[in-house]
Amino acid sequence: MKRQFTLKKYLPILVWGPNYDRQRFSEDLLAATIVAIMVIPQSLAYALVAGLPAQAGLYAAMFGLSFYTFFGTSNTLSVGPVAVLSLMTAAALGKLSLATPEQYLAAATALALLSGGVLIVLGLLRLGFIANFISHPVISAFITGSAIIIAVSQFRHILGVAGGGQNLIEQIMALAANLDQVNYPTLTLGVAAMCLILWIRHGLQPLLEYVGIRQALAVSVCRAGPLLVIVLSSLLAWGLRLDEQGVALLGEVPSGLPGWQLPPLDFALARSLWGSALLIAIIGFVESVSVAQVLAARRRERVNLDQELVGLGAANLASASGGGYPVCGGFSRSIVNFEAGAATPLAGLLTAGFIALVVLSLTPALFWLPRVSLAAIILMAVYPLIDFSMVVKSFRYSRADFVAVVLTLVLTLAVGVEIGVAGGVLTSVMVHLYKTSKPHVAVVGRVLGTEHFRNVERHKVETFESLLSIRVDESLYFANSQYLEEFIYKLIAKKPNLKHVILMCTAVNEIDLSALEALETINETLDELGIKLHLSEVKGPIMDKLGHTGFFTKLTGNNYLSHNQAVEDLRLPA
Amino acid sequence: MKRQFTLKKYLPILVWGPNYDRQRFSEDLLAATIVAIMVIPQSLAYALVAGLPAQAGLYAAMFGLSFYTFFGTSNTLSVGPVAVLSLMTAAALGKLSLATPEQYLAAATALALLSGGVLIVLGLLRLGFIANFISHPVISAFITGSAIIIAVSQFRHILGVAGGGQNLIEQIMALAANLDQVNYPTLTLGVAAMCLILWIRHGLQPLLEYVGIRQALAVSVCRAGPLLVIVLSSLLAWGLRLDEQGVALLGEVPSGLPGWQLPPLDFALARSLWGSALLIAIIGFVESVSVAQVLAARRRERVNLDQELVGLGAANLASASGGGYPVCGGFSRSIVNFEAGAATPLAGLLTAGFIALVVLSLTPALFWLPRVSLAAIILMAVYPLIDFSMVVKSFRYSRADFVAVVLTLVLTLAVGVEIGVAGGVLTSVMVHLYKTSKPHVAVVGRVLGTEHFRNVERHKVETFESLLSIRVDESLYFANSQYLEEFIYKLIAKKPNLKHVILMCTAVNEIDLSALEALETINETLDELGIKLHLSEVKGPIMDKLGHTGFFTKLTGNNYLSHNQAVEDLRLPA
Repeated sequence: MKRQFTLKKYLPILVWGPNYDRQRFSEDLLAATIVAIMVIPQSLAYALVAGLPAQAGLYAAMFGLSFYTFFGTSNTLSVGPVAVLSLMTAAALGKLSLATPEQYLAAATALALLSGGVLIVLGLLRLGFIANFISHPVISAFITGSAIIIAVSQFRHILGVAGGGQNLIEQIMALAANLDQVNYPTLTLGVAAMCLILWIRHGLQPLLEYVGIRQALAVSVCRAGPLLVIVLSSLLAWGLRLDEQGVALLGEVPSGLPGWQLPPLDFALARSLWGSALLIAIIGFVESVSVAQVLAARRRERVNLDQELVGLGAANLASASGGGYPVCGGFSRSIVNFEAGAATPLAGLLTAGFIALVVLSLTPALFWLPRVSLAAIILMAVYPLIDFSMVVKSFRYSRADFVAVVLTLVLTLAVGVEIGVAGGVLTSVMVHLYKTSKPHVAVVGRVLGTEHFRNVERHKVETFESLLSIRVDESLYFANSQYLEEFIYKLIAKKPNLKHVILMCTAVNEIDLSALEALETINETLDELGIKLHLSEVKGPIMDKLGHTGFFTKLTGNNYLSHNQAVEDLRLPA
Repeated sequence: MKRQFTLKKYLPILVWGPNYDRQRFSEDLLAATIVAIMVIPQSLAYALVAGLPAQAGLYAAMFGLSFYTFFGTSNTLSVGPVAVLSLMTAAALGKLSLATPEQYLAAATALALLSGGVLIVLGLLRLGFIANFISHPVISAFITGSAIIIAVSQFRHILGVAGGGQNLIEQIMALAANLDQVNYPTLTLGVAAMCLILWIRHGLQPLLEYVGIRQALAVSVCRAGPLLVIVLSSLLAWGLRLDEQGVALLGEVPSGLPGWQLPPLDFALARSLWGSALLIAIIGFVESVSVAQVLAARRRERVNLDQELVGLGAANLASASGGGYPVCGGFSRSIVNFEAGAATPLAGLLTAGFIALVVLSLTPALFWLPRVSLAAIILMAVYPLIDFSMVVKSFRYSRADFVAVVLTLVLTLAVGVEIGVAGGVLTSVMVHLYKTSKPHVAVVGRVLGTEHFRNVERHKVETFESLLSIRVDESLYFANSQYLEEFIYKLIAKKPNLKHVILMCTAVNEIDLSALEALETINETLDELGIKLHLSEVKGPIMDKLGHTGFFTKLTGNNYLSHNQAVEDLRLPA
């Protein structure tokens, strides 16, 4: 593959930008409006999940979206704070002992900076393949586990009680202990907010269409549920002075655009955060490309995975520099962006413009926003993520996947998000290696009257006392080379008259160095017993590789092009 | 597979014990004598490598050998302290901040207890396959790195200077700084000891045979080099009062058998040691079975790998209870045991008996043993382990293995043994997954006038505008399922008239849940574009698995037994 450097490759806006026209702009502007309605409440809410002030979510979305426009390759991916990364940010920062909210915020921006750095390095080195190691069942179980943790963490805000705790059990215990202190105005507001969101989501749209509103418009209006909750509940809190009833308000949110500065990152902080940053980078990448790829394919467009790493990295660096925290492409937001007709990544920049307007002019109004409304929005956003169908599906389909799914879920819930996802990935890799470490190896014999060789246990075939034909149905590599040794030694222990062992290599696509060493050991061991080792039907590329090593000069037997020829040559006593 | 519980399986002595006779006893006794001559100096010396008092090595060998006799399945494996595990023990204990030598020894026995526990659990759960993940090149590089570290650590004893340091660089710096304080009597004794061992090893045997001594006896005598060094140098130190010349002596070694007690293991200690114990268990297991398996095969005997885990676990538990430290089968000792004609594991018990005699009666004489003699013995034992041929071989054979080898070597030397071996294993697994994550996928067409389908890029074949035939040459699993998605989306983006995609599954041996999900996503995405997805030539077991999931009811296209049939059906517009 020729890899020529072109600026276009690393700055995709140079590809689509020159053809940008008024038609596309109007499409992008419509999509941006609808996405902004959705992303503003979500950003405020998810920042609280991460343990950050609400405006950090707005900054993250604003800067993340702006920079992705220049570096991203998906026309529809909508970048910003998402539920899972917010929880992972909280988990990463919770491990540090940070004294003040300022230090906590500084650490969050540092985390975004590190994640962005990791993504860009992976992209430039074309290492996007490491995302492949996170299997789909594992990520699915991880998202379900994370959504449960987020949901439970919001219950205390809905109830208006004190709470907290390092893990799920502690949080539930704290909730139970404080149940007698429920603040009923808060609870009422919370339940009302959730009912309103649910009704707008499920009940309003048919009604609007019934009264004759276009479906597209009806859908857009129904995206505004969370925003409506914010507006209504803020008005209510202001009008009724709900803070005097014990309803917690969001309080002062700084106005104006944030300063642009590199986050403070010392060596000690980087050292304690880099593992978390790597996990956040990879999970964010996996979540982003899984939706970006499918949406692109539906329009016969393509995303470039290596450049997506760079694009998401740029978004995170921008978020860090603007006082935000780690971002990635949001699943539901991107689908909304796609369905609303976003034509290019510029829709993201326009969305960022809307957020900037809010930041510049509407933050004073956020003072009156009840905290419980954001909790209600979070709960309604994460409950669709809780999906146990993967547990059932994997149980039915494959025990190996089931083990990985259950382990990921249990570890995420019981120990934490980082251990959960790392344990899940490790398990699926181990299980895969286990499966290939015991390949199918068969003793074969010749089907009478033909030149075909088949498994002696399944077919009626002819065999010879002095020779043993073995067919390996897998590439030979370190995880199964010892198995091959054991298999052969087991067989020869039972056959005192054996003179020749022939390995039939039709299905061997690779022989790595461990396997080569194993073959050399087998060759020597058989030699001590007066048995010769032969190979047959070795594939061309492997022949070339083996030829360089001098293996064939050490081999006691021959290398045959055809297995039948080998048997014909060796079956008669010399 | 039927797995019936029988005591014989877990106590292999019940298999060979009943047939034990005088003939075997005399064979075992001879082998035990020769091995004891070798193992006693080595045990004393390796204990010092681990940072333990010399007698801990004797106890470890004595108890390890005794218990392996009952639980082991190899007739020739000689269990006891080995160089690599001694270094790993020192590395594991060095991380703890232990105040007194007593605490250090207690932690070493705790480490043996944990390793033994890990081995037995792995054995009972039949998890021996995890040893397969350590590729041969990685273990080879790891042993070379360890041997270099051990050798360098002994230089200060040979020179009789102060020294130390956490890593190789620090040790060499400390040596260089103290070079002006060389103790010449010590250096003279050390060099003389090494020369004597080398001469006995390489020069004496031909001489003995020349004067008419039987080869077998000559070989045995030449094993006695290190023992001779111990006896001669102790006599010299006693006779010439070498301690007054500044030659360090071993000093007081307790006499009599050690008390038998469970090592002190609290939760905090177990928590900080379990990772090291796991590594020690696995490395010890890999080293043991690699030699045991080959030696067994040479006599057409077999070792049972799962029971070997139990046997080595029992040896470690015994070593822990007797005041020793982690043990495993020694490479060179086992070969000596084999060549000396050991018939059963009872040879090990007899060797243990000889060690017990030394412990009971000869420890007072060890007072006079110069420390430098043990350093000379260690140097002569580890220098053959330093072997860079694997670096050259992997460089010539495969870039992937070369990367793993160099990384293991560099990390072991520069950072430490645990990071070295863990990094090596991780690298080889990653490299393997990387290779299978980009499988060979080909667009195929029909060879004119036949029913065969071949790669369109290599053969002259017929294709049809409305259909696309794709052959995948690898099992589909999580690491390559996204690659398949991307491959297909890339192709369809270029083909506006496409109506059918047919996946030819002849070489697909497995479809895991991630790959199933990917196929479902591909199916949906193609459906949106009005393209149907078909499968052809799916193997029986996969058909069964897919059948249970309802995949075929969702599939927009059909499932064809023959690819040619699929093409015939679909090439004409419906």
